[in-house]
Amino acid sequence: MRIAVLGYGTVGRQVCAMLEASSGHELKWILRRPGAADGAKMTDEIGRIVNDPAVELVCDVLPGTHPSYEYMKLALEAGKHVVTANKAALCFGFRELTELAQRKGVCLRYEASCGGTIPDVNEAFNLARTNELDAVYGIMNGTTNFILDKMTREGADFEPTLREAQRLGYAEADPTADLSGFDVKNKLVILSNTAYRGFCTAEFPICGIQYLTKADLDRFAAEGKAVKLFGLSVREGDRCALGVVPVALPADALEAHVPKNYNMFTLRGDRSGEVKLYGQGAGGVPTADAVLRDVAAIAASPAPSGEAWFSRTLTYDPTLLTGTGYFDGEAVRGTLEELCGRALTEKRFLAFEPDRL
Amino acid sequence: MRIAVLGYGTVGRQVCAMLEASSGHELKWILRRPGAADGAKMTDEIGRIVNDPAVELVCDVLPGTHPSYEYMKLALEAGKHVVTANKAALCFGFRELTELAQRKGVCLRYEASCGGTIPDVNEAFNLARTNELDAVYGIMNGTTNFILDKMTREGADFEPTLREAQRLGYAEADPTADLSGFDVKNKLVILSNTAYRGFCTAEFPICGIQYLTKADLDRFAAEGKAVKLFGLSVREGDRCALGVVPVALPADALEAHVPKNYNMFTLRGDRSGEVKLYGQGAGGVPTADAVLRDVAAIAASPAPSGEAWFSRTLTYDPTLLTGTGYFDGEAVRGTLEELCGRALTEKRFLAFEPDRL
Repeated sequence: MRIAVLGYGTVGRQVCAMLEASSGHELKWILRRPGAADGAKMTDEIGRIVNDPAVELVCDVLPGTHPSYEYMKLALEAGKHVVTANKAALCFGFRELTELAQRKGVCLRYEASCGGTIPDVNEAFNLARTNELDAVYGIMNGTTNFILDKMTREGADFEPTLREAQRLGYAEADPTADLSGFDVKNKLVILSNTAYRGFCTAEFPICGIQYLTKADLDRFAAEGKAVKLFGLSVREGDRCALGVVPVALPADALEAHVPKNYNMFTLRGDRSGEVKLYGQGAGGVPTADAVLRDVAAIAASPAPSGEAWFSRTLTYDPTLLTGTGYFDGEAVRGTLEELCGRALTEKRFLAFEPDRL
Repeated sequence: MRIAVLGYGTVGRQVCAMLEASSGHELKWILRRPGAADGAKMTDEIGRIVNDPAVELVCDVLPGTHPSYEYMKLALEAGKHVVTANKAALCFGFRELTELAQRKGVCLRYEASCGGTIPDVNEAFNLARTNELDAVYGIMNGTTNFILDKMTREGADFEPTLREAQRLGYAEADPTADLSGFDVKNKLVILSNTAYRGFCTAEFPICGIQYLTKADLDRFAAEGKAVKLFGLSVREGDRCALGVVPVALPADALEAHVPKNYNMFTLRGDRSGEVKLYGQGAGGVPTADAVLRDVAAIAASPAPSGEAWFSRTLTYDPTLLTGTGYFDGEAVRGTLEELCGRALTEKRFLAFEPDRL
């Protein structure tokens, strides 16, 4: 395939290096920001890329919603396949971009946008071919898992653990998106859409671990429970509910033992039962590897089926996610929406125990 | 697709029911044993199927090596795609069958042969497109995991736990193949071949849990270790080593927490790192689901790439798998081959701690 790469950051550099080292692919263009396009094949004009008839596939590894979303649209409209690692832009334009790709008869793939190298998107497509998937959940953020794991194992407090995560590169200088749960939001929407074959709302309750203290974890540990930040979505017929929230897990739950910055995604099908996928959810090389796998899949099978994958109309029903919320040891019953609302209003740490998953 | 199903046991009946319920597939024939072909579409003559030009794809869900292997050959030679759930027949004829499929330009898929519904074969193909995979390991047998899990959780002894597993249908009346580790052998070869893109030997050390006692598990538990039966293979360049053996795991290993009859497969790539896949490794519905996914994949993309996937020449080198073997608390250093040899000669329980994975 003749390929253009949009973006030249941590993932973009790896993608370019892997493409250059591969046989069967030719790197034609690298899009960089104005003023930075100073090397061979580099440009700062998206028009050079989308108007180049030689380019067959565009890899979007830009950060943020804009202009990544607009660039993907331009590329699809120009009849080029698109592979994206950008969860914000993809979630923002999910319906429009997927429908545009279908109309143009090109492929839009996004393994790297959701869980780094973990083949969760690939398996959502694969399992949903023969299954009715009705739950998508798990540990979808490495920063918070690193913090929770280290605090639990070492009895450490929140602030010094966050600083160590920053020092090791597992947390950003501004850790708000990770700690507040917002990093998980787009991944949960993208994976749920794919698994449920429809369009889920992107408006749902989101609680993070920003109010967590060591005392919270100690309280759960004393009851033999672990706390993990979960993305959580369920479907019943044409209704679905989604949320991001710290979950209190029994000690024998597999997710309770996911270490360091690893992720674990669960997809549940009516025939397959629970399938869990574990691996590196971020990082330059693992994420670039997921981009390259999407490129390889398109190269192997460049003609999409023509079938409309996202054919189900889904409505949001918060009553599908009920359970017990724990606030400083106080147990409160409610929907996840009610419990998250209270936690955010009162600025208190919430751990959720779903009634069922 | 117009499909014939060979076999009508637990998995075969589910496959037939799913095909009848699906849109886009037509069940043409069901092969049953002589005398049992008493229903519509049923026959006991393989010739009726392989000579029927309407049949595009043959699903082999027969048990045992023969005549499944011969029937797959006949189907491939007749230019029909083959999907098999039969690990014994596939492992027996792996090279011949895969080369025959390539020569005939048809697909041979085998997700269900190796870990039931778990998409380990799919992901071995997927990850190995962009990665050099150098390790395949994990819990590949549900019967022994059920027994080990229950003995560990409940402090139960071996014999009553085996009887309960038999009562619940998790162990067969003759449990030898599961307990001795032989059930894992074929899966390990099939998955390693796919991941390493070559042909591994099927001759390697195999130790099971047949000599296990409660005292063995108690001894490891006192050191904070869990014991799980592993299929284990590693590759360095063109050399590989394989083995089936109970492994002593640190308490924080994810595999230590795999419950009941579940399986967990790890594939390790140079870019992806470790990817772990968890789910139901057996059972009629989950296994039939894997067969249907293979059928769906072939229907979506019936032309194989023509590329020779299994292109690496692999030689067996037992020195790649060294570690410590524990016999009744006695620690012995050696290759897995040496340690297994001793365990089988002395009829003693062995737990292995690999030097590295």
